[in-house]
Amino acid sequence: MEKAVLITIGDEILSGNTVDTNSNFIATELKNIGIQVTQIFTISDEIGTIKNTLKAAFEIGDLIITTGGLGPTRDDKTKKALAEYFNDEIALDEVTFNHLKNYMERRGRTDILERNREQAFVPTKSVVFQNHFGTAPCMMMEQDGKLCFSLPGVPYEVKPLIRDQIVPYLKEKFNLYYIYTRIVSVVGIPESILADTIEDWELALPENLSLSYLPVGTRVKLRLTASGDDESALKKQAEDEIQKLLPLVKDHVIAVTEDKIEKILAEILMERNLTISTAESCTGGELAKMITSTAGSSKYFIAGIIPYATEKKIEILKVSKETVDEFTVVSEQVASEMAKGCQRLFDTDISLSTTGVAGPGKGEDGNEVGTVFYSIRIKDQEVTSKLYMPHLDRLDFMNFVSQKIIQDLVGLLINR
Amino acid sequence: MEKAVLITIGDEILSGNTVDTNSNFIATELKNIGIQVTQIFTISDEIGTIKNTLKAAFEIGDLIITTGGLGPTRDDKTKKALAEYFNDEIALDEVTFNHLKNYMERRGRTDILERNREQAFVPTKSVVFQNHFGTAPCMMMEQDGKLCFSLPGVPYEVKPLIRDQIVPYLKEKFNLYYIYTRIVSVVGIPESILADTIEDWELALPENLSLSYLPVGTRVKLRLTASGDDESALKKQAEDEIQKLLPLVKDHVIAVTEDKIEKILAEILMERNLTISTAESCTGGELAKMITSTAGSSKYFIAGIIPYATEKKIEILKVSKETVDEFTVVSEQVASEMAKGCQRLFDTDISLSTTGVAGPGKGEDGNEVGTVFYSIRIKDQEVTSKLYMPHLDRLDFMNFVSQKIIQDLVGLLINR
Repeated sequence: MEKAVLITIGDEILSGNTVDTNSNFIATELKNIGIQVTQIFTISDEIGTIKNTLKAAFEIGDLIITTGGLGPTRDDKTKKALAEYFNDEIALDEVTFNHLKNYMERRGRTDILERNREQAFVPTKSVVFQNHFGTAPCMMMEQDGKLCFSLPGVPYEVKPLIRDQIVPYLKEKFNLYYIYTRIVSVVGIPESILADTIEDWELALPENLSLSYLPVGTRVKLRLTASGDDESALKKQAEDEIQKLLPLVKDHVIAVTEDKIEKILAEILMERNLTISTAESCTGGELAKMITSTAGSSKYFIAGIIPYATEKKIEILKVSKETVDEFTVVSEQVASEMAKGCQRLFDTDISLSTTGVAGPGKGEDGNEVGTVFYSIRIKDQEVTSKLYMPHLDRLDFMNFVSQKIIQDLVGLLINR
Repeated sequence: MEKAVLITIGDEILSGNTVDTNSNFIATELKNIGIQVTQIFTISDEIGTIKNTLKAAFEIGDLIITTGGLGPTRDDKTKKALAEYFNDEIALDEVTFNHLKNYMERRGRTDILERNREQAFVPTKSVVFQNHFGTAPCMMMEQDGKLCFSLPGVPYEVKPLIRDQIVPYLKEKFNLYYIYTRIVSVVGIPESILADTIEDWELALPENLSLSYLPVGTRVKLRLTASGDDESALKKQAEDEIQKLLPLVKDHVIAVTEDKIEKILAEILMERNLTISTAESCTGGELAKMITSTAGSSKYFIAGIIPYATEKKIEILKVSKETVDEFTVVSEQVASEMAKGCQRLFDTDISLSTTGVAGPGKGEDGNEVGTVFYSIRIKDQEVTSKLYMPHLDRLDFMNFVSQKIIQDLVGLLINR
């Protein structure tokens, strides 16, 4: 049990209507128990295609997980394809039907339709994992010691099924390889120069260790993955390599533990007992959202404000009208006054501000799309910077800028 | 030129480190010119796998688009696989090298490394589309009249390449089918009952029309897709079917034009000249971000506040301390006072508020994870609702709640 293949079924993703987030979640959960996803097929809901893909998947992997194609509506053909592929028949499963009835009754639905009843029909050879957050059950089939789990496609049904039922099942049933991952976050060095800098080290890595470059905004995450049988030997081996790597990139390292920049920030703020607040214009709430997406953020995030209209910047954050008139609202000066006003209003150690033009149209004052000024105030020190990102669309712009600010803040805090 | 196959190359997605957003963007852009993505392969960066997948892809589609695997670092083998698959060799392309040099010089980099120079090596039979936002060029290869484009994997390099170069190229080169899509957004009716309600209509649809159910939170989007040669005949045909559908689901329809709920809201607010503001606790900025993600939102979105700490709710939004003490901060009463305070502070027609427990830990006052109260104030009318979503993780919770509030607001505005 080493290699998994995911099959995402349904037209929502192929048509561009939905972003596939299930694969990401499943790949991460499997990686944590030492199972590597080696391929993902995203296919349409057609019996022939599903059967062909199951065949291809069983050739590559030991574990198949399909998501999607199990809803109560007409366009779902996955169950039929499963039964045909495994030479099985579909029949009503009483346990599943009772579970379904209870599920619907708890939600005040006593009108079990024929269509719902159909959801309790499963291939007779399948082992059912009941779905506690939806009406389509998860079915497990076996072939030559390889397993195939079929799940519905709704992310909040997929997550508990994987996390609470399938992962524990796999852990118990198989003797799994151990995987150990370390991530080193590096800033201020282009990927190609970084690669040159650490080339000798990388080439000398033991065979069971591999390195990946993962660029996130202007940061590069170096991910070192080690696999093997012996957990503690593996940890030591990876740790030894990290200790050799660090001197090569020392000035550029901003973190050697956590992965997401907002989590790195969380650790620093909690350790130093610092509070933070935000005043956002062009990022529209994304910066605050990013900070508050970390559990426990209420310990350091006090408040945020999004004074979108210029008059609110003046009224509430006390940005001076003269500054706006002289330099326009998208300016270094306004960013700075916003950060000061924010720090004063919310009484925090740190305040962050953004003012810019997310596009697609030019700013009121003719500022170019993609321009943003942002200030970082730490106590009575302040740094104001400019970014110009004309190639990003609106949402990517909001996200990139927010990432960059948190990254800059982490850099400033580390070097204080 | 009808069917496209996407190949996503690289371990970032398979390892769960990155969510694949490129496929979504490309599928949408292609759909707009009548090209349907029929399959997506997500594979690792190995020469054998890449070549096998190219073979499989050419069997299914007329157009192949690969992303990823073209960075300047060691783990990229895509170009080699391309050359082998097409029986070609890799050689330095002078035009591409000059473009690369200019690109780097404009960014103040005069130290062209060997590694960068390698990026100007392309298969000799390829047509190069220059990348204006990165160092890896896009290469087009041809086989039996079928096309294969290879792009880098960075989303902000992919988007302009697809939008500004590849889509215009395909439009000009091929006589493309016409695709017409209509979306009807339906709320307040479970998917299975909806399916029963419109079953006869759906079964009677002409063959060139197809229907999909796309659940988004508690809303279901019905997407009707028509394809054919004659643009105006197609529009009329789809329109006729929509007119037959609407009476069947009339009370549940919240929109028949735009797709995203925040765009539907934007249209209504601009049409009626209404302004809006937000006061968020548990959604942490996500609600404001969702509203401001629509271009032109500064016309109606005045400001938002995220009074995360309870004392800020009291201080700035004038929530009464007695209310907090009596009902706890996660309560109907506090949600209501937040909305009132927000409307007063920012002087808007509409205000929205949220207070809840995003988890994973319980709220300060013992409130259950997944509980949220939210208020919608429209002038002097107010509706406060409760949601209980214990199965969602933190980010999904913030997103789901924000979606639901905007959806409720749209419903209230439509029925006013």
